[in-house]
Amino acid sequence: MEQLLILKIGGNVIDQPEALAAFLDDYVRIESKKILIHGGGKIATDVSRALGIETQMVDGRRITSAETLKVVAMVYGGLVNKTIVSGLQARGGNAIGLTGADANVIVAKKREDKKIIYGYVGDIARVNVAPIIQFLDTGLSPVFAPLTHDGKGALLNTNADTIAAALASALCMHYRTRLIYCFDKKGVLVSADENAVIPQLTLAQYHDLKAKGIISKGMLPKLEEAFAALQSGVTAVILCHASQVQLAVEGDSKLGTTLVL
Amino acid sequence: MEQLLILKIGGNVIDQPEALAAFLDDYVRIESKKILIHGGGKIATDVSRALGIETQMVDGRRITSAETLKVVAMVYGGLVNKTIVSGLQARGGNAIGLTGADANVIVAKKREDKKIIYGYVGDIARVNVAPIIQFLDTGLSPVFAPLTHDGKGALLNTNADTIAAALASALCMHYRTRLIYCFDKKGVLVSADENAVIPQLTLAQYHDLKAKGIISKGMLPKLEEAFAALQSGVTAVILCHASQVQLAVEGDSKLGTTLVL
Repeated sequence: MEQLLILKIGGNVIDQPEALAAFLDDYVRIESKKILIHGGGKIATDVSRALGIETQMVDGRRITSAETLKVVAMVYGGLVNKTIVSGLQARGGNAIGLTGADANVIVAKKREDKKIIYGYVGDIARVNVAPIIQFLDTGLSPVFAPLTHDGKGALLNTNADTIAAALASALCMHYRTRLIYCFDKKGVLVSADENAVIPQLTLAQYHDLKAKGIISKGMLPKLEEAFAALQSGVTAVILCHASQVQLAVEGDSKLGTTLVL
Repeated sequence: MEQLLILKIGGNVIDQPEALAAFLDDYVRIESKKILIHGGGKIATDVSRALGIETQMVDGRRITSAETLKVVAMVYGGLVNKTIVSGLQARGGNAIGLTGADANVIVAKKREDKKIIYGYVGDIARVNVAPIIQFLDTGLSPVFAPLTHDGKGALLNTNADTIAAALASALCMHYRTRLIYCFDKKGVLVSADENAVIPQLTLAQYHDLKAKGIISKGMLPKLEEAFAALQSGVTAVILCHASQVQLAVEGDSKLGTTLVL
């Protein structure tokens, strides 16, 4: 099977033009088939504030009112997505920006939670791999905004980490899929020391570190989804700093944290 | 050659949820290959105002500062484009939203004008038809936001009428292409009477009406581009009201204004 790299980048790259430029330089050098998923939460919060729309977060998830949905459609689907796509085109990378609604690639279901009213937040119901494979086969590199749709006309806000894991799980039947989460740490940390990166993290170790409260709250959903992707057949899941992505791609096992079942 | 319909819709459809829903109902019923181009200027102006960014128009064209470019990237590329795409998906229309940067479909050059500093406004330099044909061949219906890119990393604001004409001119070698401009009038009017629609407008008549000042200022660039598209080999160019699109598509010559060389 051919290799596919699925990379997720978050706010620490997107918010800083220089960091984004450096990342895009590295990204276009990746020769295998590849998919990029981006966030954009900080910009969405800034634009919401400028528009006088209150941002409400619960457990790191954005409560998405009708007004907030418009903001994330603008920021994720428009500003951030098209900035990245045009940046890749300038570097010779033939990218195509997508939300879940485009070519019907990711269908989600509006979250129903009796305790918390999340609003227009979607849990992924189905990934349609055929158009994605077609794009990859014709040399196009998809760039996903963290938006899905319900197939009934509503866009939904879906976490970018979740989209990355769902794409990896759905595509690993077709490609040797490596999933790389780029974030603001050098990997999974086992102490407050920024360099205390655990090179390999097994599921058992994860449960142990979670029980001891060493792995912080924000990392839990990311790691849960990453392990689920690994269990579904993804070849490798790596967490590293965005500046290390080139090395992580080359399979330098000393870099970042590699998950192991 | 197979038929291709290229439809452009403007603010009078996009700004009104009910009018947009009615239009999308009609649009999905069109059985031939099709491309939709949308504007969104009024929403961009509203969002600019809410963000405290001044809107400056010269001859109906938006002066596009770096700040305004962010707004149009958000509104055209995100909010409006994804609202239409998800609306089409809900009706069973497999749409894909595009800007000129996506799959590198439309490359433009930043306008250089010695008298007026337009900012990030792009004049179309090249339409890459291969990816568009590929999307059409795989059953995807492109929905274009009025944004292009310069191939050097900058998004550019490009008039939606212009994009529609450029797409029609580029694609008419591959399809029997009909270009339909949907707007807020029933066609080209020859007096202040909203029903004084001229059914057929020849290039000679256009020059005559223009010289007499009967055709209004805003219509001039639209008609110039429409005639240019006709001259380049587009099969038919029709101007009609958005509510009449179904009939215009069926080729009812009594409806709207058909341009004739």
